[in-house]
Amino acid sequence: MNDSFLCIGLDPVAAKLPSQLKGSVLDFTKAIIDATADLVCCYKPNFAFYGSLGEAGWSILRATMEHIPPSVPIIVDAKVGDIGSTAERYAHMFFSELGADALTVNPYMGHDAVEPFLLHEDRGILLLCLTSNKGAEDLETLVVDDGRPLFERVAEKATAWNTRGNIGLVVGATRAESIRDLRALAADLPFLIPGVGAQGGDLESAVVEGQLASGGGVIINASRSVIYASDGVDFQEAARNAALALHSDIKAARRQLTAAE
Amino acid sequence: MNDSFLCIGLDPVAAKLPSQLKGSVLDFTKAIIDATADLVCCYKPNFAFYGSLGEAGWSILRATMEHIPPSVPIIVDAKVGDIGSTAERYAHMFFSELGADALTVNPYMGHDAVEPFLLHEDRGILLLCLTSNKGAEDLETLVVDDGRPLFERVAEKATAWNTRGNIGLVVGATRAESIRDLRALAADLPFLIPGVGAQGGDLESAVVEGQLASGGGVIINASRSVIYASDGVDFQEAARNAALALHSDIKAARRQLTAAE
Repeated sequence: MNDSFLCIGLDPVAAKLPSQLKGSVLDFTKAIIDATADLVCCYKPNFAFYGSLGEAGWSILRATMEHIPPSVPIIVDAKVGDIGSTAERYAHMFFSELGADALTVNPYMGHDAVEPFLLHEDRGILLLCLTSNKGAEDLETLVVDDGRPLFERVAEKATAWNTRGNIGLVVGATRAESIRDLRALAADLPFLIPGVGAQGGDLESAVVEGQLASGGGVIINASRSVIYASDGVDFQEAARNAALALHSDIKAARRQLTAAE
Repeated sequence: MNDSFLCIGLDPVAAKLPSQLKGSVLDFTKAIIDATADLVCCYKPNFAFYGSLGEAGWSILRATMEHIPPSVPIIVDAKVGDIGSTAERYAHMFFSELGADALTVNPYMGHDAVEPFLLHEDRGILLLCLTSNKGAEDLETLVVDDGRPLFERVAEKATAWNTRGNIGLVVGATRAESIRDLRALAADLPFLIPGVGAQGGDLESAVVEGQLASGGGVIINASRSVIYASDGVDFQEAARNAALALHSDIKAARRQLTAAE
């Protein structure tokens, strides 16, 4: 146990790689994993970045996942959501074929689009709740019939659907003011919190509001700010240093939380 | 021009194929296309059914799409939705790499998760609005602050975002009573209407409520009820007959509509 709450998003873009890698996405993801595996609680490859590589993408994603030490869980970020018979195919694709431990899922289509994933009791899902992008204000924060925002209804639904204990929520760090409210609604659910790096969210408040001494914890995700910390020959060292800094900041925020309780 | 408003969903499952195909998904999708291409206005392969085939799936999807006559548009059904930098990768994957003409997109994350697709002015998206599954009642039909259901807000947003004329809506045939309201809100948008086959929606009311003599039209999608019309040696003929019956029913409903106007 490395006592880490840091997840690194593996979102490789060939054009952004250090030149010495000659565009090899797989060499890049392996090097990032080698440089950071002892500092993370999980990795989160985003399917779009592999799918956009065409035929080769699938094999590169699989080889990336196989390079991750077996003790480190993998969340595949694909934000899927479809009717039951299709969701069952996505569960087969990501859980059975690729071996993901968890998958991000979109809640828009409701329970029967989520349930096929939950049937895999040894796997988990992270349900989109309140995302870190500006567009979250278009639908997610709309006030629904009971006077509270839509994303809080998603959190309530997730709690109700969580009969097997394998649901968590995606809650953007850019909206720390809402993390506390969500924690009150969903005391036991893990929160995957993206948006602390390139998207500018506040790490300290995300940890303080999202974490409970008992019950649900937080997983802080950073992608671009770690994997592209340098595009030079020192990219591994730079990625490790960026991960170390986040790891240390998360620890400091948690100490502050413990002291306050 | 075959004057068709029928879309056939290509959702192949190896275990459901006629035994003489010996599990070849590609032979199956090609045979279905050969049997129906003159009867459809478009095809809609669902990404999950190819992705779940592992490494081979990508090539099978590409070969399936290449087998479709160039005059017949292809909607790839993947229901993607993610932040802008990721959406841009999905646009690359589905539009540039695979050559899809249109893509289904999930609205939950809002405008900046949708806009990267719209920048491809020669392609289109179908935005999930009111889906055909039971779970639509969990979030999509919730009443939001102006007293109307969330899915109507999605239709309004889609109309506002449609500055390039390349957005349509996904509206389930199982909810014909809402199609009329949506048509009033989004007069010019095409509606992709799934759910008339295996899901039991009413085709006639879907066409009558969704179609306007001027303005937005309907695309009626059927998947399982056509492609699995028979699992015997006659599967091509059975699929063609199922497609012909739908094509004819849609025409009859449209005649009724024209007579009423």
